[in-house]
Formats: sequence, C-alpha cells, structure tokens
Amino acid sequence: MAHNLPIEGFRRILGDKGITIEQDDIAPWLNDWRGHYQGAAAAILSPATTKELAACVRLAAEHGIPLVPQGGNTSMVGGATPPADGSALILSLRRMNSIRAIDTSANQAVCEAGVILSVLHDAAEAAGRRFPLSLGAKGSATIGGLISTNAGGTQVLRHGTMRGLVDGIEAVLPDGSIYEGLAPLKKDNRGYDLKQLLIGAEGTLGIVTAATLKLVPAITHSATAWFGLGSPHDALALLRALEARLGPIIEGFEVMAAEPVGYVIEHVPNTRAPLAQLAPWNALIEFDLSNSGEGGRAQLEAALGDLMTDDTIQIHDAVIAQNEAQARDFWRIRETIPEAERAAGFPIAFDISVPINAMPDFMLSAAEACTARFAGTTATSYGHLGDGNVHFHVRAPADIADRSGWLKTSGEEIRHYVHDLVVAAGGSISAEHGIGQSKRAELGRLSSPARIMALRAIKAALDPHGIMNPGKLIPLASEA
Amino acid sequence: MAHNLPIEGFRRILGDKGITIEQDDIAPWLNDWRGHYQGAAAAILSPATTKELAACVRLAAEHGIPLVPQGGNTSMVGGATPPADGSALILSLRRMNSIRAIDTSANQAVCEAGVILSVLHDAAEAAGRRFPLSLGAKGSATIGGLISTNAGGTQVLRHGTMRGLVDGIEAVLPDGSIYEGLAPLKKDNRGYDLKQLLIGAEGTLGIVTAATLKLVPAITHSATAWFGLGSPHDALALLRALEARLGPIIEGFEVMAAEPVGYVIEHVPNTRAPLAQLAPWNALIEFDLSNSGEGGRAQLEAALGDLMTDDTIQIHDAVIAQNEAQARDFWRIRETIPEAERAAGFPIAFDISVPINAMPDFMLSAAEACTARFAGTTATSYGHLGDGNVHFHVRAPADIADRSGWLKTSGEEIRHYVHDLVVAAGGSISAEHGIGQSKRAELGRLSSPARIMALRAIKAALDPHGIMNPGKLIPLASEA
Repeated sequence: MAHNLPIEGFRRILGDKGITIEQDDIAPWLNDWRGHYQGAAAAILSPATTKELAACVRLAAEHGIPLVPQGGNTSMVGGATPPADGSALILSLRRMNSIRAIDTSANQAVCEAGVILSVLHDAAEAAGRRFPLSLGAKGSATIGGLISTNAGGTQVLRHGTMRGLVDGIEAVLPDGSIYEGLAPLKKDNRGYDLKQLLIGAEGTLGIVTAATLKLVPAITHSATAWFGLGSPHDALALLRALEARLGPIIEGFEVMAAEPVGYVIEHVPNTRAPLAQLAPWNALIEFDLSNSGEGGRAQLEAALGDLMTDDTIQIHDAVIAQNEAQARDFWRIRETIPEAERAAGFPIAFDISVPINAMPDFMLSAAEACTARFAGTTATSYGHLGDGNVHFHVRAPADIADRSGWLKTSGEEIRHYVHDLVVAAGGSISAEHGIGQSKRAELGRLSSPARIMALRAIKAALDPHGIMNPGKLIPLASEA
Repeated sequence: MAHNLPIEGFRRILGDKGITIEQDDIAPWLNDWRGHYQGAAAAILSPATTKELAACVRLAAEHGIPLVPQGGNTSMVGGATPPADGSALILSLRRMNSIRAIDTSANQAVCEAGVILSVLHDAAEAAGRRFPLSLGAKGSATIGGLISTNAGGTQVLRHGTMRGLVDGIEAVLPDGSIYEGLAPLKKDNRGYDLKQLLIGAEGTLGIVTAATLKLVPAITHSATAWFGLGSPHDALALLRALEARLGPIIEGFEVMAAEPVGYVIEHVPNTRAPLAQLAPWNALIEFDLSNSGEGGRAQLEAALGDLMTDDTIQIHDAVIAQNEAQARDFWRIRETIPEAERAAGFPIAFDISVPINAMPDFMLSAAEACTARFAGTTATSYGHLGDGNVHFHVRAPADIADRSGWLKTSGEEIRHYVHDLVVAAGGSISAEHGIGQSKRAELGRLSSPARIMALRAIKAALDPHGIMNPGKLIPLASEA
C-alpha cells in the first residue's frame, strides 16, 4: 500500500461523491473481467469534470502517486487493472458521462470519456445517424477506453478503427495540464499529431477526457449474404470481386472456418446453419444499399449471380437473407462464436494481424504448423479477414482431461510459437486488444530495438514520473 | 561553417556519387523556391539506400552534425532550407527514387521517399489505379516530403490527407536505427503509433525513407459541375445536400469567391467564366460516377435539378460540363488562381482551417474584420470548404505603390491579427503547409502550454542531440 496518500486533498477536489475508500465498493474494480489479474487500490477517484480530473492529476503528480484510468473495465489484456502492490489509485471516468453535443450537420458527436458505447449508439440513432464502431462489450465499454485502446470491431473494413473516427480530443497530460483539441479540424499541420499519439496509448501518456467523434448516415436499406467457400483465399477473392463490382458499400465482411460455426450450431440454442451443407469456410457479408436507389437489391443479386459462375472463386453455395429476422440470425452465428467457443472449452486465443493479402496463407499455414508442432491440438480462425485481422485459436488435444493444467504447461510455449509465426509474416501480436499487462513481455521480446527505444523515450518524455497507468504497455528492462 | 566535418567518413559510406561538396552544385538547394530563406551547407549527402542513409545518420549523430532532409524542396514554409550558419548538411533523398512494388490486389504501392508525386501518379495509372492526392508541385514534390508535411490538396474531402493514405512507413531515427514499419497492417495496437508521429513531423524526429501507400480504383466515369451561389453558407449547404442525396461520390468540392475567379478571367489566357453572370460565390464539384451504373449521370442531373428548386439554398445558376474539355476548362480556373493572384499583385496569404461548420461564417466575418481594421485592404478566400480549409488572402490598398514595402510594414500586424481570429474560432494557423521556419514563432505565440510542452518533450526524447532538421517546427524558448 502507498503511504501518505493525500486522501483529504483528493476529497477537497472531488467532494464526497467523487471518492470511494470503502474496500467493498472498490473490490469489483480491482480485477479484470477475465479474472487473470488481481490488483489493489486504496481509493477510486471519480471526477465529474475535466478540471476536477486535472486537479487530481496535479495532486497525484506532486505526491508521485500512480493513477490507473478506468472506464468500463472491459480490457482483454489487463489494461485497466491496478498493480497488485496497491501503489496506485484508480481514476474512474464513470461520472464524466455526458454527450455534450450531437451535430447532424457536421456529423459529429462530442462525448465525455465515460459515455458507454451503446448509449452513444442510441443517441446517434435518435438523431438519424450512427456511430460506426461496435463490439461485444458495447454495454459496458466507454468512449475513453475505446479511444485509449484504438478499438476495432466488425465495421473496420469500411469505417476504420477508433483512430479514424476521432476528429478531436481533450486530455489531461501527466503534469495535470489540459490538452484542448476538441475542435474538429480535418486539416491541421501544427506539428506532431498529439491526438493520434494519445489514441491507443492505453492511458500511459495521459487521460482522455472527451472526444469529438465522427458519425455517419443511418443505413436505410441493407442486405445480408452468407457464402459457403472452399478456402480463405476464396473469401478474399470474393471480397475483392465485390468491391470491384459494387464499390464501397460493404459494411461488414466476416470469415469463419467450419469449426467455430459448428460450435455455434451445437452449443447456442436456436441457431441453424444458413446453407444446406456447412462449407469449409464461410463469409458473412453486410451490404449498405442506402445510396443504391430502387434497383440496388436487383443490382446486388445480379452481381452475386455473376460471381457464382466465376470459376476463379470456389463458391459452394450462397444465400441472401430474405428478411431482417433472417439477417439477424446470420449475424447471431458470428456474434455468438465467443460464447460457443467457451462452451466447447476455452482455446488459447490470439488477436493478430498480418498484411491482408498474406492472411489467407497465414490462416492455413499457421494452423498446419501448430497442429504439427503440438501433437493433438487443433487450430482454426475466424474474424475480419478484410482487415488482415483474425482471431486464431488453438485447442487442447481432445484427450486432455485437465485443460487448465494443459493451458498452464503448454500455453506459453504455444503463445511464443504463434507470435513468432506472426512476426515472421510481418504482422502484429496485437491487432485489436492492445498490450496491457498480458502482452507486455511478448512486445518486449518481439520488437525491434528502434521501436522499444521510441516507445520508452516518448513515455519518459511525457510521463517522467511514471504515474500514468503503471505496468502497462511499455516492456520492462528485463523484457527487452 | 561547421568544423571538423567527417567528409571522408561520409564519402566512405556513400561513394563519390553520393556526396556533393562543390558549392556551385549545392547552391540551388540552399534556398526555398519562394526566396524567403537563404541557408548554407558544406555538403549534400545523397544516400542510395536506407542502409547508407542510416550509416550517415549514425556518423552525423556521433559528430553532432545536424542534417536537413530534402526532397523536392517545394516547402511553402522554409521547411527544407538549411540554417544560414552552415552548421548543417543537406541530406537529399533524390537518389532513393524507386517504386519498389505496386500491388493491385491490395491496392498499395511501396515507394521510396525520393519518388516524385507525378511519377507515382503515372505508375498507378499504368496499373489501372490512382494515388488520390495531388497538388500544384506534383512535378517536384517527393513522397517523403509529402509524408513529412502531411500534404493535402483538392481530394482530401473524399480521401483524406497524406496521414490517411500511408499504410506503412520505414524511417531512420535520430540515433541511426531503422524503424521498419512498411508492412501494411490495418489493425495494429502495439503501443504508440510511431507512423502517425513521423507523418507531419517535418523531418524533426527522423527521416522517412519509404512508405506503403494506399491506391484507389481509377475513375472510369465522372462529371464536373459549376455552381453560382449567394454565399459560402449556400456552398456548404449544397455540399451537405449532395452528400445526403448521392452518397460518397464527391471527389472534389472547391469554393471560390468572385474576386479570385475574376482575376483568372482577367489575367490567365484562354479562360472564360462558366456561367453567364459571375456569382458572388462559386463551387466547382467533381463527381465520381464509376460505381453509379448506366443511370448515374441521369440520377446526378435529377438530383441537381431538385436542388435548383430548393429554396433553402441560394443557387444563382449551375452547369454540368458537357465534355471532358469543358470539365478541364472549369478545373483550369481553380488551378490557375495562384498564378492569377500573383499577376494581380501578391496578397498576404493564409493557409488556415477552422471546424467545417464554422467556416462559412469565418470566411465572411474575418474578411469584414480585416478590411475594417486595415483601411483600404480587401480580403477574400477560396479553397477546400468541405475540409474546413481555405486560402484566405488579404490585399494591399489599391493606392499603395510600394507593395513590398507595405508587406514589410503591415504584414506582420495583419498576420497576427488574422491568426488571432483563427485561434478564436478554434482553428489552426497551418492547415496544409506545416510550420517550418515561417510559422514557428506564431506557433509558439498561439499554442497552449500543454501543446508546447508535449512537442518539446517528444522532440527532446527522440532527438536528444537536436540533429534532425534544426530550427524547424519547434518554437524556440524565446517564442513561447
């Protein structure tokens, strides 16, 4: 535990509502939802305004007290869990939850960091717009966390990651100064892009307090198709052929091996396969027909018909959803894969990316290499092929009774092995989820000296006392 | 002049072809094309490979010799001119001019930093693609310089600035280490985005040596329209109405006050006004109809017809170019404005941005405020309204005989005045051109302490010996 905490100083800044010191109230925020990390903290600070937050950071800086920013606490990599030694305080953004403005003319929303993603979705919809980023944790994840982890999801193909959806940013820097960059400037060449530096920094360079976010038009007409395919190569060829014929109307393109689809049909109630026969590979495609006029659907059907007879792409079968209910059923298969995977027994999961054109080969060759190297394992993948990002899963041999024991003994070796394959393919060991605590050592092991030097130099420059989200992202000296 | 230059050391790295020490050969590269800055340098280093360049940087770092990276030397702000004291050497990228690859499946080109923009345009076109960024200096400007200044142009509305067109980057950092980030990863959350940090850094954090750039499909069908409008507000309303009706097919949307259009008609041979009467404000719009099918042009004409009767937008008149020659004539008016402005006598030119929705008011109110404050001046603007970025020009009173004298006496006061208006509107004093030498003091005067602190800390962290493009971008202590 940290000594000499200026609790009363924080209370003067925040009032009684803004500080939590009862351990029972703090406890739910001390571990990550996956249960991999357990932290400790003497207090949660919950400022209601950017000024209060800045005053907290100044006081923390004076006393050298580390702060762990926390939004919805949905990190996949332990990025919002305080250190176990109790040296840090949690700084919660949950009271900064106002949508300050929605401007339908500029297609922008100004949100505080604590706004929950689904709340923004609803507000945008009520204004006839949408915020085109979504993910499973949307009911808990907050805008500040999504920015600080450069979140992705299934709409990245068309709309980009969070990095492309932030038009302006407000943040408190580690010295307590306020960086005021909310004004959305499409062109601004006044030196280093501090906005982009803070996006994806996992709270290690400052605390994002608000952002101006892009909105896009609501979708008024759409179509959803399911394709059964021979290989991931066919999936990528299909995507490219559709883009060439139909232009930028593909809102989502998810690829799934037969195995995870099979788990869904087996384990998730009320699901059924969209096609008569489950193909080795499957693509779920969402088309935005809002700007395609009356003939949009006919044009789409004609294009898909043409592709069925294109013998450069091995298409087993395909179907367009006949109504919204059927479209929802198709998407439910994709969305319940994580749940079905858990029901089938936890795999070792990788969140990885490689250059898009290299991904089909990687999906097959990495699976083959893994199962050859680790006897009895199975490996497969699903996800955002069009972004070069899939969730690659390795499963324990079927005859292993003690799976969690196996995960402990074989897990690290398999992790190293797969990450080495990713690096050899020019890829990233963290596509969507960030580094946090869980990938820090691997980042150190696998990064070039130039990258590590730059990360450390920037961290030390902006946070010289190391008070911003300690223990996250930056590899320790022993790890590089 | 710097003493003890290790010229022979550089020669050993570069060979005779890679080093220039004759002052006659160096002289053309010692000033900016506008003639505002005059530098000095004992040598130009011209590495042919990234490895040679890295070895030069290591040697320069050992001896504390500053390096000024130079591509086409087309900076608008003195960003590529060496210091006048001769303490630095020029590091030219001109020999690193290979297009390493064009991948039409991934829609990407891998270019070395010294590739000239128009050369990339031609290569992309030959491959049935295009690189969607262009500007007046395309015959000289290089990819490295365009990245280091986050260049813009007339296609930013649809395709973004250079920041959005770089998928991967290779750079030499100030210690001579090579940052290898050419692999184009659409999703990569391995910590701070070093790519975005280097883009727009004006060579002060390292030297960009190559990049993986986005290509887009070639335009197969297009249409060009000219609108006469009542005000910049009508122009923005027109843009929003077109976007809502037609979707993301607007490739360019340039707005021009009557005055600069009049200068073109008066001063540039073989130009004529597109409409019978010159309107107070004019919009030039380029539509990409490649994905609109057979009925695309009819649909566009119907939409424009509807808008003519929309009484919320004051449209004086409008015309769609009947053929390519007429479309080129329309664009020639926009493109020859700089030339016509020079023929009409140099104005004080501002490259500024404000939030898009604030721009119509700003264009009118800033012009009014300027002419009220500086008796006899005229002020007007043209440019990329849809990006919130216009070229705002203030002209000397008509009765001033000695314009260059007036520029010297009144120029700085007017510059401060206009920049103050921009900052009050939440805008940027550099939208496209960067800071370089010419806006450094104004950046210092007008930035928040948080921004200056962050810029300086990052610069000092990555370039502790200050050898990267000295005197550019970062305000001096006396300037903040």
